[in-house]
Amino acid sequence: MKIAIAQLNPTIGDLSGNAQHILEAAQQAIAQDVRLLLTTELSLCGYPPRDLLMQPAFLTAMATTLKQLASNLPPQLAVLVGTVLPNDKAACDGQKPLFNTTALLQNGAVQRYFHKRLLPTYDVFDEDRYFEPGSESTFFELDGLRMGVTICEDLWNDEGFWGKRRYEANPIADLDRQGVEVVINLSASPYSVGKQRLREAMLRHSAVRYEQPILYANQVGGNDDLLFDGNSFGLNRQGEMVVRASSFATDLVVANFDEAKRDLVIMPEAIAPQPETADAEIWAALVLGVRDYVRKCGFKQVVLGLSGGVDSALVAAIATAAIGAENVLGILMPSPYSSDHSINDALQLAENLGIKTQILPIGTVMHAFDETFAELFAGTEFGIAEENLQSRIRGTLLMAISNKFGHLLISTGNKSEIAVGYCTLYGDMNGGLGAIADVPKTRVYSICQWLNERVKEEGEKINQDGRFSSDSLPPASHPFSVHPPAPQTQAAFHVLYPSASIPEHILTKPPSAELKPGQVDQDSLPPYDVLDDILDRFIEAHQSPTEIVAAGHDPAIVNQIMRLVTRAEFKRKQAAPGLKITDRAFGTGWRMPIASRWLPDTSSATR
Amino acid sequence: MKIAIAQLNPTIGDLSGNAQHILEAAQQAIAQDVRLLLTTELSLCGYPPRDLLMQPAFLTAMATTLKQLASNLPPQLAVLVGTVLPNDKAACDGQKPLFNTTALLQNGAVQRYFHKRLLPTYDVFDEDRYFEPGSESTFFELDGLRMGVTICEDLWNDEGFWGKRRYEANPIADLDRQGVEVVINLSASPYSVGKQRLREAMLRHSAVRYEQPILYANQVGGNDDLLFDGNSFGLNRQGEMVVRASSFATDLVVANFDEAKRDLVIMPEAIAPQPETADAEIWAALVLGVRDYVRKCGFKQVVLGLSGGVDSALVAAIATAAIGAENVLGILMPSPYSSDHSINDALQLAENLGIKTQILPIGTVMHAFDETFAELFAGTEFGIAEENLQSRIRGTLLMAISNKFGHLLISTGNKSEIAVGYCTLYGDMNGGLGAIADVPKTRVYSICQWLNERVKEEGEKINQDGRFSSDSLPPASHPFSVHPPAPQTQAAFHVLYPSASIPEHILTKPPSAELKPGQVDQDSLPPYDVLDDILDRFIEAHQSPTEIVAAGHDPAIVNQIMRLVTRAEFKRKQAAPGLKITDRAFGTGWRMPIASRWLPDTSSATR
Repeated sequence: MKIAIAQLNPTIGDLSGNAQHILEAAQQAIAQDVRLLLTTELSLCGYPPRDLLMQPAFLTAMATTLKQLASNLPPQLAVLVGTVLPNDKAACDGQKPLFNTTALLQNGAVQRYFHKRLLPTYDVFDEDRYFEPGSESTFFELDGLRMGVTICEDLWNDEGFWGKRRYEANPIADLDRQGVEVVINLSASPYSVGKQRLREAMLRHSAVRYEQPILYANQVGGNDDLLFDGNSFGLNRQGEMVVRASSFATDLVVANFDEAKRDLVIMPEAIAPQPETADAEIWAALVLGVRDYVRKCGFKQVVLGLSGGVDSALVAAIATAAIGAENVLGILMPSPYSSDHSINDALQLAENLGIKTQILPIGTVMHAFDETFAELFAGTEFGIAEENLQSRIRGTLLMAISNKFGHLLISTGNKSEIAVGYCTLYGDMNGGLGAIADVPKTRVYSICQWLNERVKEEGEKINQDGRFSSDSLPPASHPFSVHPPAPQTQAAFHVLYPSASIPEHILTKPPSAELKPGQVDQDSLPPYDVLDDILDRFIEAHQSPTEIVAAGHDPAIVNQIMRLVTRAEFKRKQAAPGLKITDRAFGTGWRMPIASRWLPDTSSATR
Repeated sequence: MKIAIAQLNPTIGDLSGNAQHILEAAQQAIAQDVRLLLTTELSLCGYPPRDLLMQPAFLTAMATTLKQLASNLPPQLAVLVGTVLPNDKAACDGQKPLFNTTALLQNGAVQRYFHKRLLPTYDVFDEDRYFEPGSESTFFELDGLRMGVTICEDLWNDEGFWGKRRYEANPIADLDRQGVEVVINLSASPYSVGKQRLREAMLRHSAVRYEQPILYANQVGGNDDLLFDGNSFGLNRQGEMVVRASSFATDLVVANFDEAKRDLVIMPEAIAPQPETADAEIWAALVLGVRDYVRKCGFKQVVLGLSGGVDSALVAAIATAAIGAENVLGILMPSPYSSDHSINDALQLAENLGIKTQILPIGTVMHAFDETFAELFAGTEFGIAEENLQSRIRGTLLMAISNKFGHLLISTGNKSEIAVGYCTLYGDMNGGLGAIADVPKTRVYSICQWLNERVKEEGEKINQDGRFSSDSLPPASHPFSVHPPAPQTQAAFHVLYPSASIPEHILTKPPSAELKPGQVDQDSLPPYDVLDDILDRFIEAHQSPTEIVAAGHDPAIVNQIMRLVTRAEFKRKQAAPGLKITDRAFGTGWRMPIASRWLPDTSSATR
């Protein structure tokens, strides 16, 4: 029996558009003799729909769309669609109003529902806000094959793998007891660096433990701050990979269940490769995230400030790969404190990328502000106010261009500076999306270096017209695409002009905000490798200051960083959504009070 | 037996400071022969501590502080303190890591814990993110009196009152079965307009139904966007009010349990009055919210833009009442499009309030921006870009003053304009706190009118020095204050200069952003009474566009408003925290996707 996974990229709330994608996938599947088609978690409305789930008209429209979709689908194909279902017993039993559910569609109608049982409430997840957990796991039969249906978190509770139980129930154990022969999972599992290795290791452990083949269908695409990497896959009873869909692109992958052997068949040609390094993986994630945010917000073009520094250089390269050089506008805004190399480096970068630029010096506006403040600021010293002013003038110039020409402003701040507040609110923090807001500074450098090496390698395979030839693209082993436009179908890390390298000088000069003469970042901050290690331990590993010091860091520096991170909360509160690539980003999964007196430092354990 | 409620105003994370307040309350209580002292939910760390609960050092410090507090308290006094407790069974049973709990402190040690059972996850609440629900309700005995302990939401599940069950368990019913004679509740129940009437009606229903006296201790104070109104109270077995603490101020109120009658005794002199109107109540809430945000963030002074309009006038009056006229700086930033009355009205307001002002015309900076953009914007028409530019120049001026002098910038936008996006990101939205961000425009007017009437009444009781005499303050029936500074102890709506009225012309002229000649708000928006009713139905009452039209609104206007609200999501995402006064504010309880294609309109039901 052929079972296909439609790895879809839904737009939140676009019910008819998402249904259309499911329908197109079903037609492709039928053409390949597929019997059962899986889509992803909440595939009808997109994940996460958040408080749209509180709008009664949204729920009504979703139910109507599901019914229409059922009647439009090829009747002989069984299709699993992610949707929500009102909980009839909510009022009388004191339960939550909805179920996060999977609908089985066949023969023109919804045949039944399978509810999600384990509802995550950590990090970015708020599922208890909307959903009642399903009380049991169950299965359906198709041509004599008994298949258990689970949703995302339902499979994240293998205490043998985690070394602890994460929830009381364990759906796969329940399904195993019911004699299912395949476990299906519809997911919307957000990306973070290395997450796919974790998923594969975890599900391999469960497949082997319960001797259950597993088909795991994951959403792909960017929805605000959350990125979904796809990477849907299947495992046989021995935990071996049988198929794997593309990473960071829509896909349709067809698995085969051998009725005689009662197991999924290994198909080496249907196992898509993974990005070769963490840098390559993050690059692909960010390109997809920028592309989807621009597209799903209804924009075509973006604008960003080009400072000549490494952050804006990387963001410009990402934006170019995401939406094409012709849609990226870089603005150079030199001040009297800018060094010559800033302009030259930025212009060289723009030339490499093939993007348009505009130079708007800020001296005139700086002078006008100085004049306006002459009396009020008389006798005070040049300081933070004056430094921030330059940043805010630039932010205001960029927003005026955004408003005038309808370009989305992309913000270029990195995670390290956002963590310690080395950024200006209403200045360089301006923008609709923080492209690298969750990328530590050291990682910004390593991605740029990876990019330059990659471009160098690819340069050797280029046609004379200066662009990739189709020969230089990898064989299209997964030609299916739900979103027809070309950029959606290609692995994102191949969509780059050959000369699109970051000028070497940008990577070698000391980082500087250039807000006063001779300023460099390390006047105010420890070296970035030290800073990033402290931040990683504190933010992602939840280590205490004492533990961070025990790992070899200077207590004074640790305390300084803790103080800076704590004090910058008010800035982050007003930051643009930032594409999440780590296990803990400063976004929906970071919920800190602002007016707080708690200061984590090395003395806190004894206070 | 005397039982006291310490209505505390904790600062989030200030463990030693909060413990000190509890200790002071205990000393006051002992002096009044109190046997049992109640504090509020999570009184040791303040509510809500949010993700501080994920910092191991924070949890360790909280446990240490609790132990120290227990040993410092008068041994003969029993004290109930709100804290968290690690859940030892989290890992083996797949449970959440903490309990939201009440510690009974007596004889120098923690005697036992009572866990919260009903964990809210709606609106601003995320308790399932951190806490495992307690599995049972139980009681302790003191001098033969059996008292059941509950926490906040535990008492919000009377299906007879709500007409439905909100949770499966009902702690008060369980306690009643166990033969308790008093039900105690430690709360941190956020304020919204009219909430206290709801609380009293709900608990009266439960008191009567179960024939249980109830002592309800509620937190007071502002923590970021959330306001807590205090209003702690006691009910006897007949549901009659026996004591009530102040609204919007710290307090210590002592109730008396009559051992013979086995009920709480009605003490009319210990029942604090309520604000006389909704306007008075909101005023008091906002004054407290501004004061606490300023104070708890470590600021002393604030700055705000004075446009001559009603929003900034109200915010200036609130700030003056909150922290004193000497700490408020108003900045007038006229443009060539500003009318004369804008300046005059703003100056008259400042004179009434007694606040300092500074005039910084923006023409010079506008001209410099025009010059900078001359080439790039050549041939384009004056539009949104140019309008926003003026707002961003003003926002940048205000932030420079904030940075230079260390004043907190208060944002003056109202809920109506934030809802429809009639505001400029990085412009008039700038600021650390949105003082009236949850106040609809029609309510802004009604509060100003209430204020002017109130000032007029009070004016008749004034001394010759132009300030309130102490005679004009109400009798201090609740002299206890945990926070010694005077403003903390007075009911906030009495802290006003007598001449602090809003100039009448500000309330009568048509509202205008004055970003182009002759502009008024109603060029772009329906009349505010129409707009606010549509917004209230959509946002707070969760009505569908079809229902809103059925209530008598023009479908074209309803659809226009739905479109505006949906499209402004990106602005709200980057807004400052706004003081919450309604059942649904655009803050932590409003979680909407940005890159969404769902548009609620009158056709959505059939899509």
